[in-house]
Amino acid sequence: MEKNALLAERNRGFFRAKKLLVLNVVSSPGSGKTTFIRETAARLGASLRIGVIVGDLATDNDAARLRTAGIPVVQITTGTVCHLDADMISKAAAQLDLDKLDVLVIENVGNLVCPADYDLGEDLRVVLLSVTEGEDKPLKYPPMFHSAHVAVVTKSDLAAAAGFNRDLALVNLHRISHHARVFELSAKTGDGMKSWLEFLAQQRAAV
Amino acid sequence: MEKNALLAERNRGFFRAKKLLVLNVVSSPGSGKTTFIRETAARLGASLRIGVIVGDLATDNDAARLRTAGIPVVQITTGTVCHLDADMISKAAAQLDLDKLDVLVIENVGNLVCPADYDLGEDLRVVLLSVTEGEDKPLKYPPMFHSAHVAVVTKSDLAAAAGFNRDLALVNLHRISHHARVFELSAKTGDGMKSWLEFLAQQRAAV
Repeated sequence: MEKNALLAERNRGFFRAKKLLVLNVVSSPGSGKTTFIRETAARLGASLRIGVIVGDLATDNDAARLRTAGIPVVQITTGTVCHLDADMISKAAAQLDLDKLDVLVIENVGNLVCPADYDLGEDLRVVLLSVTEGEDKPLKYPPMFHSAHVAVVTKSDLAAAAGFNRDLALVNLHRISHHARVFELSAKTGDGMKSWLEFLAQQRAAV
Repeated sequence: MEKNALLAERNRGFFRAKKLLVLNVVSSPGSGKTTFIRETAARLGASLRIGVIVGDLATDNDAARLRTAGIPVVQITTGTVCHLDADMISKAAAQLDLDKLDVLVIENVGNLVCPADYDLGEDLRVVLLSVTEGEDKPLKYPPMFHSAHVAVVTKSDLAAAAGFNRDLALVNLHRISHHARVFELSAKTGDGMKSWLEFLAQQRAAV
């Protein structure tokens, strides 16, 4: 763990020198990370060039989905390991042409517990919470939600069907992720994506 | 890990002597474990008496929801630990009046990775997959889905809104959980609950 912290700082320095904004995207399985990343890249188009490192226990389904959309992707297959670590990121990043990128997005293993403890050298940790998961996830997984710089409520198009209590979810989010910027959106319909993309462009400009 | 395997077998022996059917319910965060367990207990009524051990990193929200429904519950708060283990179960079970129960349900921490490695002494491992999580979860989390005796597709009432591809999900489930009994249901509407409850009664009768 201490070794990971050191390697993460080395990554951070390396990415800074490369003028990359680095996001570590974490969530439960099935919160919509891949769709969110794909739609973010598609809407940014040529204005910000995005590359992705995808972590999964098995399969390269997500990498394939992103690659089909024309996004440079490296897949990490972790086997039984429940998180990515800084060393994996360093090795995977070496397989991307970083000089051609503005933003590096790391799609972590779908897991609200283990990835919380592993700094990857990111600038922003982005936690996704889909409206179908229930309003109390921040309270139940405090280390992850507390450590996030950004919280994104996803699948807002399903809010009514799922009986999502938005007010309660935001109260819970602000309680645990009290310093985090919160966005609410549907990557599927595009609703709410604009303010997220503006935020991303600002963050990249500040690197 | 080896110590956990031994303690799990001790639990198994203990529960057998008590004529308890023991379920270990696992899933992503927000797949609907608590609602599924609550509705199972409510529909069984007095025919099978259910007690629950609930694991969460933090909060006793789920325990409170079950207790309100009149179900005997013990909460385990794991802090930062991403799974329950056999020793936690042994201690928690001692707080329930097991002689008054027919079925002991363990609601594990919401996590598709870590709990796969920990035998708790259960008779059946029951993995939940909600229709909003996408069809490829079995492929992406093979240890968990492979180790399950029962796979339950939940939130079927949201299938159309979520654009759930049922055929693909079942193909993926059968590929990884090829020996598992599969149920499709909505605990919210009650649709599909009947065959699950019949299966549970059969399993209990065979203990």
